[in-house]
Amino acid sequence: MPPPRTKRLSAPSSKRVIADLRELAARTSTERGAQRVAWGPVWREARAWFTEKVKAELGLPVETDPAGNAWVTLPGASPRGVVFGSHLDSVPGGGWLDGVLGVVAGIEALRRHAAAGTPPVTMHLVDWADEEGARYGRSLTGSAASAGTLDAARELAHLVDRNGVKLPDALRENGVELERMGHAHAWLKARDPRAYVELHIEQGPVLEAMKKPVGVVLGTMGVERHMVRFTGQAVHAGATPIPLRQDAFLAAAEFALACRDIGLKFSGRTPKTRVVATCGVVKVEPGFVTAVSGATDISLDLRALDGAVLAKMQAAAEKASRAAAKKNRCTVAWSPLLSIEPRPFDPTLLELCADAVREFAGDAPKLPSGPLHDAAEMAGIMPTVMVFAQSSPGISHTRLEDTPIPHLDKSIKAFLRLVETTVAHVAADEA
Amino acid sequence: MPPPRTKRLSAPSSKRVIADLRELAARTSTERGAQRVAWGPVWREARAWFTEKVKAELGLPVETDPAGNAWVTLPGASPRGVVFGSHLDSVPGGGWLDGVLGVVAGIEALRRHAAAGTPPVTMHLVDWADEEGARYGRSLTGSAASAGTLDAARELAHLVDRNGVKLPDALRENGVELERMGHAHAWLKARDPRAYVELHIEQGPVLEAMKKPVGVVLGTMGVERHMVRFTGQAVHAGATPIPLRQDAFLAAAEFALACRDIGLKFSGRTPKTRVVATCGVVKVEPGFVTAVSGATDISLDLRALDGAVLAKMQAAAEKASRAAAKKNRCTVAWSPLLSIEPRPFDPTLLELCADAVREFAGDAPKLPSGPLHDAAEMAGIMPTVMVFAQSSPGISHTRLEDTPIPHLDKSIKAFLRLVETTVAHVAADEA
Repeated sequence: MPPPRTKRLSAPSSKRVIADLRELAARTSTERGAQRVAWGPVWREARAWFTEKVKAELGLPVETDPAGNAWVTLPGASPRGVVFGSHLDSVPGGGWLDGVLGVVAGIEALRRHAAAGTPPVTMHLVDWADEEGARYGRSLTGSAASAGTLDAARELAHLVDRNGVKLPDALRENGVELERMGHAHAWLKARDPRAYVELHIEQGPVLEAMKKPVGVVLGTMGVERHMVRFTGQAVHAGATPIPLRQDAFLAAAEFALACRDIGLKFSGRTPKTRVVATCGVVKVEPGFVTAVSGATDISLDLRALDGAVLAKMQAAAEKASRAAAKKNRCTVAWSPLLSIEPRPFDPTLLELCADAVREFAGDAPKLPSGPLHDAAEMAGIMPTVMVFAQSSPGISHTRLEDTPIPHLDKSIKAFLRLVETTVAHVAADEA
Repeated sequence: MPPPRTKRLSAPSSKRVIADLRELAARTSTERGAQRVAWGPVWREARAWFTEKVKAELGLPVETDPAGNAWVTLPGASPRGVVFGSHLDSVPGGGWLDGVLGVVAGIEALRRHAAAGTPPVTMHLVDWADEEGARYGRSLTGSAASAGTLDAARELAHLVDRNGVKLPDALRENGVELERMGHAHAWLKARDPRAYVELHIEQGPVLEAMKKPVGVVLGTMGVERHMVRFTGQAVHAGATPIPLRQDAFLAAAEFALACRDIGLKFSGRTPKTRVVATCGVVKVEPGFVTAVSGATDISLDLRALDGAVLAKMQAAAEKASRAAAKKNRCTVAWSPLLSIEPRPFDPTLLELCADAVREFAGDAPKLPSGPLHDAAEMAGIMPTVMVFAQSSPGISHTRLEDTPIPHLDKSIKAFLRLVETTVAHVAADEA
């Protein structure tokens, strides 16, 4: 076991992180945004840049686990592990910070700690494979494998991309065997991981609306996602008086508006108690200008940090669907699409995170994450927390996604401090 | 000029008409319904049956005008013309009565009058070409050409079917030259037409709801059809609190419900004053379960028999669209798709029609037609009226479309009497 740290850590700085982010963006983006789609050539280019950078500046190798996640290990005085990172992959035409911010800031965390000697515990920087699921539709692939929640044979073996390339073949092209992906869980457990920390761009408008540069993420919301089908009777628009219709689209329209009201009703006054309800897919049959809709499918996506609230929202939405169906003389049927438990983050790490954010941003606003992140998978197996950098504009998966530089600076510094205090916390816990 | 009628007309009978309808259905339907799509082989088979029938039973030839409409002429004592008919073409999988009822009943009208000697005026039975527009999307093609309202070069020359066949080529296959279609108007005017009478299945639920077997059609409703586009901002469903959204689909949903209310508000208590409002096409962008809609296109089809009411409905819908856009922080833009004037039918023929319907059905309920018919084109150039046979169920363009036999019987008899009194009216008018 190497000797413990001797020198003091330097003050957290964002300078090299922002320079590295710009370098990576220049190498892996077009005028339409980031193009680092997992398992493809531009993503491999990003990983080659990452490998060179880590080797040149830290003298450390990049290892790949059985699920294709890339790891850099800075050995510490103790084998106990502190893990941090995010993902280098992007959607096609994504933002310059989505995912890469947490990985590139993680390089700086390693540089900062390595310069001070041997850390008290072992530090692991991870670049999760295929967080976005942009090519095959299954997101959080790598982190789910590490968390032991991925059933690769069932979930991945049959997937095919738009060009007809099978996922197992795309994995093999990247040195990953589908049958062995599940071993990533043991791979991680063997590293005795004690905490997971992730910095990510918010990709929403909450911090901007609060005028806060950095936020403490309370956890990821649970998700209840369903397809709701209203069935009425397709009839001629000209021939059928309104009172004699069974208009499935109008039933769906009433349902969608009721779901918005449910989202507003169950939202508390603080960001922490915010919930959302969204109807994003609407398919009207037969879909002619001269036909009253005989059937309409509408998706419902409900999210809340509190599982009990989420269950109440769903019950209210089911009731609203029955009322909308009855009013329009239609029937309604629900088909579940996805159900994810809320993942509240660790109370101790939340305190450390709030301290770090407060130090650089003056205030530590707390908010849940509506979107999922790799941290949601890690929260199932170890204490976890996330830092959000403000988005401005508060939109996602577009090249316009951005964080103003002063806010980015504060976010990176808070993250670096949080890694430092988490390392100290895990070390103190052992002692 | 042939001598006038000497024998009395036989009592109106539906027997041969219903037998002929069954014979034609057997020859031109599959288990999925009627397949007489205009300009295709099954439609030609229906016309071949029609030609044989007319030749065998009446000894009369079928002539085709420059737009492909098929005509049978029973010369009368006067060259003044009374026109009646409908269309042999159908949608794919259509009902057994849609269109053919009026043509086959027209054969019976000719048989009935021919058996009594020379009618006082000349009688013209017409089978309009391509009423449905099922293959190329332009309905009322043949009757519009005859009415002088078709601009074939502009409206038809560019049309292509799903298999890539150009409409001009499909026309040529049937002996019709696109450039000459406009001559159908002069062809009809040369026949000195003084009245047009059409029997059609209602294809809606109004008569069934009123428990009436036969109806007097007051005219065809005017149509205002538009595509309305709401534009908001596409954002992540999880990341964006409801109050910060600009949800274009919810704006469209509120608009659709407001349009239903407008339809109900402007409808009077009687079938005559009924109006309708329908949103049949809804296209949500980007259309992901995890995305708030950034833009939604929704169609609006407004119909009323009274043009002033139709204009008020459209103004109310425009106002409602602006309110829905504002409430959801979206913008709205309207694009016109179709604007058709109401076509009220002739007061004198309406009286004759009511007398004929009352004779066989005991009562003469009056209702407008929401759907268009060839009669709408004829109403522009001569006094016109229509008879509706009750639909049960009140649906259209499906093999399930039907009229119960007792109601069919009464409808056919009323139509035959109406042709008789119209012939007498035109003759009396000349005298």
